[in-house]
Amino acid sequence: MSVPSKFTGFTLSSPENWDKPKVQQYEAKPEKSHDVTIKIQVCSVCGTDHHIGSGGWGPYGRDDLVVGHEIVGTVVKVGAEVKEFAVGDVVGVGAQSNSCGECDLCLNDNEQYCEKSVLTYNQADMFSDGYVTQGGFANYTRVTEKHVFRVPDGMSAEVAAPFFCGGITVFSPLVRNLTPYSKQKVGIIGIGGLGHFALQFANKFGWEVVAFSRSSKKQQEAAELGAHHFVATGEDSDWVSKHSNSFDLIINCATSFSAIDLNQFIDVVKPGCKLIGVGLPDFHENITVNALKLGMSGKFMGGSIIGNKKEVKQMLDFAVKNDIKPWTEVFSINEDNYKKALTKISKSDAHYRVVLTDFDEFFNKLA
Amino acid sequence: MSVPSKFTGFTLSSPENWDKPKVQQYEAKPEKSHDVTIKIQVCSVCGTDHHIGSGGWGPYGRDDLVVGHEIVGTVVKVGAEVKEFAVGDVVGVGAQSNSCGECDLCLNDNEQYCEKSVLTYNQADMFSDGYVTQGGFANYTRVTEKHVFRVPDGMSAEVAAPFFCGGITVFSPLVRNLTPYSKQKVGIIGIGGLGHFALQFANKFGWEVVAFSRSSKKQQEAAELGAHHFVATGEDSDWVSKHSNSFDLIINCATSFSAIDLNQFIDVVKPGCKLIGVGLPDFHENITVNALKLGMSGKFMGGSIIGNKKEVKQMLDFAVKNDIKPWTEVFSINEDNYKKALTKISKSDAHYRVVLTDFDEFFNKLA
Repeated sequence: MSVPSKFTGFTLSSPENWDKPKVQQYEAKPEKSHDVTIKIQVCSVCGTDHHIGSGGWGPYGRDDLVVGHEIVGTVVKVGAEVKEFAVGDVVGVGAQSNSCGECDLCLNDNEQYCEKSVLTYNQADMFSDGYVTQGGFANYTRVTEKHVFRVPDGMSAEVAAPFFCGGITVFSPLVRNLTPYSKQKVGIIGIGGLGHFALQFANKFGWEVVAFSRSSKKQQEAAELGAHHFVATGEDSDWVSKHSNSFDLIINCATSFSAIDLNQFIDVVKPGCKLIGVGLPDFHENITVNALKLGMSGKFMGGSIIGNKKEVKQMLDFAVKNDIKPWTEVFSINEDNYKKALTKISKSDAHYRVVLTDFDEFFNKLA
Repeated sequence: MSVPSKFTGFTLSSPENWDKPKVQQYEAKPEKSHDVTIKIQVCSVCGTDHHIGSGGWGPYGRDDLVVGHEIVGTVVKVGAEVKEFAVGDVVGVGAQSNSCGECDLCLNDNEQYCEKSVLTYNQADMFSDGYVTQGGFANYTRVTEKHVFRVPDGMSAEVAAPFFCGGITVFSPLVRNLTPYSKQKVGIIGIGGLGHFALQFANKFGWEVVAFSRSSKKQQEAAELGAHHFVATGEDSDWVSKHSNSFDLIINCATSFSAIDLNQFIDVVKPGCKLIGVGLPDFHENITVNALKLGMSGKFMGGSIIGNKKEVKQMLDFAVKNDIKPWTEVFSINEDNYKKALTKISKSDAHYRVVLTDFDEFFNKLA
């Protein structure tokens, strides 16, 4: 299959126009010997697409930015040194597209924290002549093989896509932060694009799972997703004392730490255990916590981003084996549906992940 | 030896008078079957004595409060059910004097975080009829045996006392938070009563040790204490980039988190690793950190208090074996020296721990 020298995608000119994409061509990333070129089938929408798209992390690195980093497609070309993939493979790409491979972090399964890590879009890739990366709302993408993952047999592209950012973002901190206590009690704050994955994983790990939400609106769905208990923090004034010092781990899937009462959640984590945020706030946002409470508690708060390659593989196997799937709304890609999907994400009213599909049909018409 | 029904100590009437103790008698804690009664030989001064004494944690629980929780003395009486100690044993007591012994935390070597934990002074002890506890600047103290520790043979009372709070406060987080990386690089912020213990322990564990201080004033002493490297954060504007993502653990021994630039120290901790505060701030103090930095970093911040009984024993053995000793200024106890010692601590100009001694001589004169 011939690969065009220019790719075509839904480009954004500036943060003010985050919901007004223009479909146009742009230069493809220069091809390196380890690169895999992928013809995209579907791309789902992550909160980050709106965050970055609307300028939450500062100005764009280019004036024709394509967002999207939950990508599934078919390999159409491989570089001379690619070992793991062949033309025809169905693969996925998440939020990271490159890393140095040589630093202490890369060599210890922390490549997602490599200081030279390259995001899948809107970042200059120093390993590709400084090309500012482009995301997945496009007909093709090109990514170095170490950040490409095989989609398991029997998992459809629509099901697979949201795992590559939303899924791994919660899977990694869940498997990395087990405690020595015999029974794990895990809390998941926020039932949405991230939280609905976390509830499913935690349940299938066999842990005691508690879902936290402000109201009891999502109680039934939380139970369907695997929560054994539900706490509506806005409706139960005693919830902190009921759960004092009892959680082995809490994952905050709300947009940011500042969206929750940190001091309360610190109270319910066990000493030695962690409250981990995985939602990504804007640049300027600070979090504040009582110094004595954190100091005296023996507890930890921190963050986590995506996961490493081993964890992505482990997650996909675990999902297939345990029939874990994202709950999705699926739209055929076009300008209207792109705007509809991104707007849903911006208002947190997706239920719970939005997948744009039928890329072949849309882009073939343009050709 | 007969034990008086009233003990005599340096009592404080209110936070305003934290440096004006009155030597007087008060009722001893009611004796329980597991209690050990100790005739005090020495008591060293901890920052907390000034914090609590000056009202940093709120009003006193009694108007004749005795502070002091780095206590060494001789057992003069044991309750009917005491198993571990006998009259004549030389023992120490730290900042905790009771705990429930039955909760998940107590049963998992986290008794220092027990929700019913009783501080050595200024806290109602629900296991002793609500008696508001009294500290070690007194002739006697009475503590349940599970919070009493044997002083190792060959360690003098003056050397031993500061280990029971200052020593264990840094020893516990050092041994609890090792990382999977092959070589541990550990940072110690603040060279003082806590930091000077931490530098010695970390060095003798065989780790790479970096001392952090604002100026280079203490560089020579840090090296003598075991630091392999020294960073004067106020004098080296490039220190963050030089040490980016490189520490397996940082212990903040400064008074509080707000005394340091948290965002900078988060930058130099490795992903998955921790910045742990052990200094204790005032009640009202908040700490603020950039949400995105903490969220994206995969790093953790938190606190730690003292340690468990096993760790105290482990620490004392390790100290004897490796000739680790506090650097102390030693004064005979009397009203003038009490004021001098507490004032030094309040100004952080102790070098590095102040021990009050000759309790026998002082209290015998009163009798």
